[in-house]
Amino acid sequence: MFLAFDVDSLKYDAAGLIPAVVQDVRTNAVVMVAYMNKEAVKRTLESGETWFWSRSRQQFWHKGETSGNVQKIKEIFYDCDRDTLLVRVEQKGAACHEGYFSCFHYRILPDGGVQVVGERKFDPAKVYGKNGI
Amino acid sequence: MFLAFDVDSLKYDAAGLIPAVVQDVRTNAVVMVAYMNKEAVKRTLESGETWFWSRSRQQFWHKGETSGNVQKIKEIFYDCDRDTLLVRVEQKGAACHEGYFSCFHYRILPDGGVQVVGERKFDPAKVYGKNGI
Repeated sequence: MFLAFDVDSLKYDAAGLIPAVVQDVRTNAVVMVAYMNKEAVKRTLESGETWFWSRSRQQFWHKGETSGNVQKIKEIFYDCDRDTLLVRVEQKGAACHEGYFSCFHYRILPDGGVQVVGERKFDPAKVYGKNGI
Repeated sequence: MFLAFDVDSLKYDAAGLIPAVVQDVRTNAVVMVAYMNKEAVKRTLESGETWFWSRSRQQFWHKGETSGNVQKIKEIFYDCDRDTLLVRVEQKGAACHEGYFSCFHYRILPDGGVQVVGERKFDPAKVYGKNGI
């Protein structure tokens, strides 16, 4: 899918990356933000599932490859500056490696405190083992 | 509001910035992504409206100051890596300087083409004058 799109028409930063906001189409929850390089954009467009470039591990990262929690792409948008992607997906299971549906589960409260929002959908230790992601 | 939150607990990149995804609470549309430095996070938390650091202009940017299209903050979240903010707002008017409600109005089509989605809410030339933003 989306094979003919010109990935060179997007703007990548000095490290060759473009941020991608991932939003679940059923709940409209913003579930995560991660980064793609040009090859990850190509793989995403070709496969219909999200591929990222992991800045911490310096390697490609097919979301859900370990956990099974893949993101099936329904729509992709870019913004007026051509430097950010919005990827609307069907999120399988949960997006966050901490087991929550969304990575954005820490809410800043008016009193300056922080509230954890949402339920754990899975136990990270069981899905990823001791090594995390 | 949110005055007591410790802005040092967030992770800023090498340029001192943290990306902020802005989502409208009524439509759940992701309307823009922009960047805050620590002082912009403080001003946002204090004022209840979004403040950013403009990377292109290298100055603070109170969203809506020129256009009137301010973003009233309803909820703020940070993610599991503490390096991205999700700011849920009531978007007045339209977020995009091109006059669309969302900056993400370019949809990539399966045939590789691009479709402009959404209606123009205002004429940028009338709001910003000839100089754009």
